[in-house]
Amino acid sequence: MPRFFVGNEAITESEGIYSIVITGDDARHISRVLRVRPGEELTVCDGKEYEYISSVVSVGDEVRLMSSKRQRITSEPPYTATVFQALVKGERFDLTVQKSTELGAGRIVPFSSRRCTVKLDEKEYPKKTERWQRIADEAGKQCGRGVLPEVTFPMTFREMLDEASKADLVLFCYEGDTALKLPEALKKSGCPGCVSVIIGPEGGFETTEVDEAEKRGMKPVGLGSRILRTETAAPFVLSCLSYEFEIGR
Amino acid sequence: MPRFFVGNEAITESEGIYSIVITGDDARHISRVLRVRPGEELTVCDGKEYEYISSVVSVGDEVRLMSSKRQRITSEPPYTATVFQALVKGERFDLTVQKSTELGAGRIVPFSSRRCTVKLDEKEYPKKTERWQRIADEAGKQCGRGVLPEVTFPMTFREMLDEASKADLVLFCYEGDTALKLPEALKKSGCPGCVSVIIGPEGGFETTEVDEAEKRGMKPVGLGSRILRTETAAPFVLSCLSYEFEIGR
Repeated sequence: MPRFFVGNEAITESEGIYSIVITGDDARHISRVLRVRPGEELTVCDGKEYEYISSVVSVGDEVRLMSSKRQRITSEPPYTATVFQALVKGERFDLTVQKSTELGAGRIVPFSSRRCTVKLDEKEYPKKTERWQRIADEAGKQCGRGVLPEVTFPMTFREMLDEASKADLVLFCYEGDTALKLPEALKKSGCPGCVSVIIGPEGGFETTEVDEAEKRGMKPVGLGSRILRTETAAPFVLSCLSYEFEIGR
Repeated sequence: MPRFFVGNEAITESEGIYSIVITGDDARHISRVLRVRPGEELTVCDGKEYEYISSVVSVGDEVRLMSSKRQRITSEPPYTATVFQALVKGERFDLTVQKSTELGAGRIVPFSSRRCTVKLDEKEYPKKTERWQRIADEAGKQCGRGVLPEVTFPMTFREMLDEASKADLVLFCYEGDTALKLPEALKKSGCPGCVSVIIGPEGGFETTEVDEAEKRGMKPVGLGSRILRTETAAPFVLSCLSYEFEIGR
C-alpha cells in the first residue's frame, strides 16, 4: 500500500474518525501518477508515532482521506542511528543514503576528511543535500519507515567528531590492530539510545584522524577481515545493529 | 596491495621459495594498466587455501613473481553461503552480486520465480553469467577475498529448491505470519557448514511457492519490519551471518 507522510496539522480527529488532508507534490503524485480513486486505501504516517490506514474520500489539488484505524508505528528501530559518511563520488553516496534508510538510519550526515576525493563547495550544499534528502524520502516511503531520516549539510571532520560524540555509543569504523570487533562493541554496550556510525572515504582515515577520534574517547571498531567498500560499510553496520537489537525483540 | 588469483599449476616451490607465473588478461592488466615494475609487491592467491606476498621478477606477456611468504587465507567465512537470488533488473542484480561478494558469499545462483519481471532466454545465459562472474571477480579481488564466488547459470524455482535444500541451514526469506525471525534461526542452528540464502523478486514469492518450499521442510525466515528491496536482502542476511558466526571468532 502506498505510504505518505504528513505533519500533525494535517490530521484532525472527531469521535474516533481521523480526517487527513494531503497537499502539494504528494497530492499531485497521488492523483496524477498513482491515479488513485476515491475508495482506495493509502497508509498515512505522521512521521513520529502513528500511522493511519486511510480510505481516499476525494482526489484533486488536495487529497482528502478518512481513517478509523490508527496504529502505533512498529517499523522503527529501538535506537536512533546516525550515519556519518565521508563524502564519496555521487552514485556511491546515493547508494549509502538509500540503503541506510532501508536499514533504519535515523539521520545521515555527510562529512569531509583528508582522503576524500570529493570536495564540495559550500554553495553546493543546499542542492546536494536536497537531492540526498529526496533519495532518503523515496526509500523511506517504499520500505515502510515510520520516520524519514534527515540528511544534514556536510560537516568538517572536527564538526563531525563533536556531533558524533554526543551519542551513547560511537562506532568509529577503522580496521587497525587495536580495533574492537563489532560484535564485541555491541554486546558490551547493550542497546543504545543513540548510536553514531562513522564511515571513512574510499582511502580510509589517516592515522592522525584516528588519533583525533581516539583522543575524544572513540575506540576504533573493526568490521571483519574483508575490506568493505565505503558504501557497503554503513549498511553492514546498520544490518548488524538491527540483528542485535531490533529484529524479533 | 593488488590481488590476483592463479591455479595451483602456476605455483612451484623449491626450498621454501615459491615461483609464480601469471598469464593472460591478468598479466596484461598488471603490465599495461597497473604498470607494475620488477621489485614491486603483489598478493597472489591460490583461491583455495593460501595467499603469497610476492615480489615481481619480470613483467611481459607473462608476469613472473617470487615469494617466500606463504600464509593461510583468513578472509573467508567459516561457512559456505550460497545466495539464491531471483532474477531482477540488470543494475539491481549486478549490485547483489557485487555486495554479496564483499560480504562473503561462496556462490551466487540466479533463479526465476512467478513474479520475476525479467525473463531470460537460455541463449542469454552464458553472456549474462559471464558478466555477473566478472563483477564477482572484480569485487572479490578488491575486497581481499581468498576464494572468488562462482556465479552459476540461472535455475528454475524447482531446481533452486532442490539445490538449496542440500545445505545444513536454509534461509527462505519471506515475511509471513509464521516466519521465524533471522536471529532466532541463526542462534538455533549454530554455525552451519553450508547455508542457503533464498531471496525472492521485487514482488515477493507467491503463496504457492512458499507452500512448495515449506513442503520441503524450509521454514520462512523474516528479516524485520521494514520491507527491504530485493537487492538489499541478500547483503543484509550475509552481514548478519558474518556478525553472528565470523567476525571476532
